[in-house]
Amino acid sequence: MSLMVLGTVALDTVKTPCGLRKDMLGGSATHFAMSASLFTKVNLAAVIGEDFPAKHLTFLKNKGINLKSLSREKGSTFRWAGEYKQGDLNTACTLNTKLGVIVNCLPRLDKSQKNIKNVFLGNYDPDIQYCFLKELNHPDFVSLDTMNLWIHNKIKPLKRLLKKVHLIIINDAEAKDLSGEDNILKAAQRLYSYGPRMVIIKKGEHGCLFYSKHIFFVLPAYPVEKVIDPTGAGDTFAGGVLGYLVKSPRINEASLKMALSYATIISSFNVEGFGLTRTAILTKQDVGQRMRRFKQFLRF
Amino acid sequence: MSLMVLGTVALDTVKTPCGLRKDMLGGSATHFAMSASLFTKVNLAAVIGEDFPAKHLTFLKNKGINLKSLSREKGSTFRWAGEYKQGDLNTACTLNTKLGVIVNCLPRLDKSQKNIKNVFLGNYDPDIQYCFLKELNHPDFVSLDTMNLWIHNKIKPLKRLLKKVHLIIINDAEAKDLSGEDNILKAAQRLYSYGPRMVIIKKGEHGCLFYSKHIFFVLPAYPVEKVIDPTGAGDTFAGGVLGYLVKSPRINEASLKMALSYATIISSFNVEGFGLTRTAILTKQDVGQRMRRFKQFLRF
Repeated sequence: MSLMVLGTVALDTVKTPCGLRKDMLGGSATHFAMSASLFTKVNLAAVIGEDFPAKHLTFLKNKGINLKSLSREKGSTFRWAGEYKQGDLNTACTLNTKLGVIVNCLPRLDKSQKNIKNVFLGNYDPDIQYCFLKELNHPDFVSLDTMNLWIHNKIKPLKRLLKKVHLIIINDAEAKDLSGEDNILKAAQRLYSYGPRMVIIKKGEHGCLFYSKHIFFVLPAYPVEKVIDPTGAGDTFAGGVLGYLVKSPRINEASLKMALSYATIISSFNVEGFGLTRTAILTKQDVGQRMRRFKQFLRF
Repeated sequence: MSLMVLGTVALDTVKTPCGLRKDMLGGSATHFAMSASLFTKVNLAAVIGEDFPAKHLTFLKNKGINLKSLSREKGSTFRWAGEYKQGDLNTACTLNTKLGVIVNCLPRLDKSQKNIKNVFLGNYDPDIQYCFLKELNHPDFVSLDTMNLWIHNKIKPLKRLLKKVHLIIINDAEAKDLSGEDNILKAAQRLYSYGPRMVIIKKGEHGCLFYSKHIFFVLPAYPVEKVIDPTGAGDTFAGGVLGYLVKSPRINEASLKMALSYATIISSFNVEGFGLTRTAILTKQDVGQRMRRFKQFLRF
């Protein structure tokens, strides 16, 4: 039942109309794990540098996240600095990226974790995602995110990898880019034709879309009054989806709708604080309350 | 139970990635009426010129739309030419506007229609909307749309008018502009404080939001594979909302959700053809079929 996430553990500097925060704990694997750990045991695979603060490791361990595949390497931790401007909180402008240890050090799977059956390959070089996947012993459920950088520069390895993936979770701009389709529904159909038997397109504040052979639906986002920092909302969403699905007895229309709704709710909390501020203190009760309201929206 | 719409009846020239159509029947009142007439008797108030083709009048009459308050005046019919570009079918670029008769000729209410109790003041100069409203004999339910032109140039008359309006239906960009709020939920709250006890914000392909003192919900749009021409989708949406509500025994959460859902479905057909091509032949069966699928999306 447990879940492995491959991704980044980073130190983020973020500027939004609500303020500036420096060197916060961030990264795709971190946001994913924080969200998924509300439902299930999460194992995290990533690379950090010598400068990574011990307090963040303690924090992650206290959240019950297994760090056996988190390796500390010689060099600096991956750092990202970005800004969100008033009026367009959906779009991050990258100010600075210091790749540090992730340039040369591959994330390695701890041998004791080879038999984990569910894996989320967070946004990474598709060649590295592929190698990491091969280390796992016949996983049952493989999901993947990617980004424009790899779509433009590593399309062949990405397409090869997609044939081995059950679920792709991708944002709308990237879905259009990868599929070459302007229409979101056509984009989903095209991504489906690349291999994954399930496609989820994230539309940020505009909700999400699920597409498979027999199941198709759309959901709105949960509207929040004050967006403080959207960093990590997409990974938080993916964590909610996978965390819920891994615990479900079966994957069907009902469990998929619940998974995407939980993901919607947890992401709505994520954007209400800088970095992990809000999701770190999130309880099942908080999520349940907002979930009831969300279901009420959609009940006829 | 009948419904009056004030707006434009126009001749539209539209270019989209799917082709070019010249001098099609269009205008806010026309699209609204076409949609609302699926539910109720619609009365249309607008001004046309000497050049307005008789065939369009026959078409509207055959649709059961009452044209007593449609006046033909000396001069040319209002003409709009616009283009939607590949990749951004949500945004119309206006190529040309010929106001014609609407510059000098006010839409006039036929005396026999003074007692109509439901009115939609389609996008128009707020002073004209106000004068038109005064001609009606204590309407029960007044709804209104507006646009950036009036928000920027006629804010005082618009705010005066909003105190007399029960429902404002407005798109997201205009809602942000009118309220001065970037966040859509805050924008809705601010618009509510201007007078209307109900606020609907249309988000095009991203769905809609309803806000009132005790009722609040969001709905996604119905995804369509091929958007041919989005012209008039907003008025089609408003027509669906009002058409349904006018026929409802009461306005409550259930009827509002049904109204906005029907509006969502009818608009999804509107964008699938140039001008009125698709909505003109729309049957209750077509709408019902898509409505069932939409409800299925949102059923947990």
